[in-house]
Amino acid sequence: MSPPSRAETFPAHTPAVSQIFTTVLSQGPLTRLELSRRTGLSPAAVTKAVRPLIEAGYLVEDVAEDAPPALGRPATLVRVDGGRALFIGIKVTGDEIIGVLTDLRCRILVVRHLPLPGRTPQQVLAATTGLVGELLTEADGMDVTVMGLGVAVSGDVDRAEGAVRYSPFLEWRDVPLAELAAMATGLPVTVDNDVRALTVAEQWFGAGVGLSDFAVVTVGAGIGCGLVVHGRVVAGAHGVAGEIGHVTVDPAGPLCHCGNRGCVEAIAGDAALVREVRAATGTEVADAAEVLELAHRGVAAAREAYARAGDAIGRGIATVANLLGPERVIISGEGLAAYDLFAEQIRAAFHAAAFGSAAECDLRTRPLPFDEWARGAAATAIQSFIGSEPVRARSTP
Amino acid sequence: MSPPSRAETFPAHTPAVSQIFTTVLSQGPLTRLELSRRTGLSPAAVTKAVRPLIEAGYLVEDVAEDAPPALGRPATLVRVDGGRALFIGIKVTGDEIIGVLTDLRCRILVVRHLPLPGRTPQQVLAATTGLVGELLTEADGMDVTVMGLGVAVSGDVDRAEGAVRYSPFLEWRDVPLAELAAMATGLPVTVDNDVRALTVAEQWFGAGVGLSDFAVVTVGAGIGCGLVVHGRVVAGAHGVAGEIGHVTVDPAGPLCHCGNRGCVEAIAGDAALVREVRAATGTEVADAAEVLELAHRGVAAAREAYARAGDAIGRGIATVANLLGPERVIISGEGLAAYDLFAEQIRAAFHAAAFGSAAECDLRTRPLPFDEWARGAAATAIQSFIGSEPVRARSTP
Repeated sequence: MSPPSRAETFPAHTPAVSQIFTTVLSQGPLTRLELSRRTGLSPAAVTKAVRPLIEAGYLVEDVAEDAPPALGRPATLVRVDGGRALFIGIKVTGDEIIGVLTDLRCRILVVRHLPLPGRTPQQVLAATTGLVGELLTEADGMDVTVMGLGVAVSGDVDRAEGAVRYSPFLEWRDVPLAELAAMATGLPVTVDNDVRALTVAEQWFGAGVGLSDFAVVTVGAGIGCGLVVHGRVVAGAHGVAGEIGHVTVDPAGPLCHCGNRGCVEAIAGDAALVREVRAATGTEVADAAEVLELAHRGVAAAREAYARAGDAIGRGIATVANLLGPERVIISGEGLAAYDLFAEQIRAAFHAAAFGSAAECDLRTRPLPFDEWARGAAATAIQSFIGSEPVRARSTP
Repeated sequence: MSPPSRAETFPAHTPAVSQIFTTVLSQGPLTRLELSRRTGLSPAAVTKAVRPLIEAGYLVEDVAEDAPPALGRPATLVRVDGGRALFIGIKVTGDEIIGVLTDLRCRILVVRHLPLPGRTPQQVLAATTGLVGELLTEADGMDVTVMGLGVAVSGDVDRAEGAVRYSPFLEWRDVPLAELAAMATGLPVTVDNDVRALTVAEQWFGAGVGLSDFAVVTVGAGIGCGLVVHGRVVAGAHGVAGEIGHVTVDPAGPLCHCGNRGCVEAIAGDAALVREVRAATGTEVADAAEVLELAHRGVAAAREAYARAGDAIGRGIATVANLLGPERVIISGEGLAAYDLFAEQIRAAFHAAAFGSAAECDLRTRPLPFDEWARGAAATAIQSFIGSEPVRARSTP
């Protein structure tokens, strides 16, 4: 349970070392030559960056078994040694926290769910500390050091400061979560927005591998969006980015918790679905799960609520495509369970509102359970460990 | 008029060389140490990238005059030798083309305007060839070689292919402009969207210097937007990006030429202003200049049209801020002449629709005459020359 010793830090936090490590992590095993091609670094720079990573045991070399022997010296492949370090990722929802223990390759070794007694920072911190303790005990049995903890929370999160500025679902304002969790667990802590964390996991291991520009849109209690532009997750100069939920779809539409009218989230979020079906049927509806059940039973008001939600989501995605022109938009989130009810409207609204060739963007659905979000949180901890976390760099044209 | 000889090409098209050159160009003169700090490259990598640039005469060394002699060896500053090469930039509008001859530092040496007899690709190409000929004659007198031509056109432009896919204002579809202009002028040609070209100029020499994330919004005949994210102009995976003009503000609003209703451009573009004032007053209104005159004379319908335009632009900028969180949004374009008529509405609508800390984004107006757009076109030619043009790279996380 002791914090990692000084000897256990990453060899060097240079851009080349981070880039090489991340490329091997997400696309490896690779030869040095292929690494040079994929990163744009010179072969000499690749060799120079790989050396300390091998010496410190984070990368290992293998001989490619399928290399044609006729070519002389067999090609040496470089891969990440997953067993070299462990990480913990925590995703906080309104009802529970989900924790994963992963190896350095961000493969999930252990998953734990813990119900939350409440949503105050104290309650979430206590639950997090308890869950991290359980996962550290598991790690002790593996005799590998846990090098970092990532915590993913919905809302406006300032990763550089380690603070949750505003989380509507948790009703938090200005909570210095990284500092509090570091004191409680003894681990280096990275706090990030949950959709951005999920986007890192998709970029490294999911439907975003090899793409320099893509978006993840999550549908559920809120409507979120993670953006990757020029190969990096967009964090926003002031901490806010990817707020597709607050793209205006109809200025005369329903009031949103942000104070505006007709935001995507005010039409397509779980609370909006519940509200609309209540208003249309005059009956009490408990939650989004019940709206889904009503829709699947053929209740018109529920089906119409989903159709309007799909239209709003499709327009929101078209706005992202018109501004950024991503190669792909990955649609996920708890709301995916209802995808058959609004898929058609999402696509129709997207194609109607996409401008010119922006309509060529590939829309794809991916069921990503909360384990995967927690894995994203672990990925942010790995980012911090290897020194590739987003920094507010000066312009590098 | 002959194309540049082989000896006149840029030393090396590696990312480090391009980055070093661009940083010196936009932020220099700088010491090697400061270059290392600003680019994140190691001092050795900076030295290695600077050497061939100095040998080829693109960079030169100066001794800093204000360096304190007590520190021993005076610091050597590196700067771009503006006189080493010339470039031509052309901005195409509906009525005229504007051409500039610039040095390697993209300083404007000569400006020429030429009215267009019409907007067909043949007419524009003939005018461009004529104007380039005049500017090449000027260059001959300076005894420096013109190394490239940049042409900036509104609409959906595929820079990598050198083609204008669709330009509503020119009524062009799939015009291979780079190839045609290269054949006619004998110069290497870069074709780009005009707002993206202007954004490069702002990034290198304007209100975007030193910022990694900003936007340029242009108001006029169309409503355009250039985006810089992570230090690079966003081009879009399929060629479309920055289409703020087609962000929906009101789904029940006026029909847009793109086929949707209530786009920002359908409310705030010049044609929309003219249409609204005609409809409200029942009188013939020639153009946006007349709407502006009517508004300044206090005609209510004209003032209201500008107020609605300001509201739509402010909402569009808020959408950009909510998705990308830029540090700054630069508002420019011919429409800036009317800025006093809608500034208040732009700011009010922006602040109402910006989510959380996205509202901290700095809104700034900058008058940028067409000369500056043509300078942006020359900047895209310099980008191509030094090998920093956007490529669809693989993911570099």
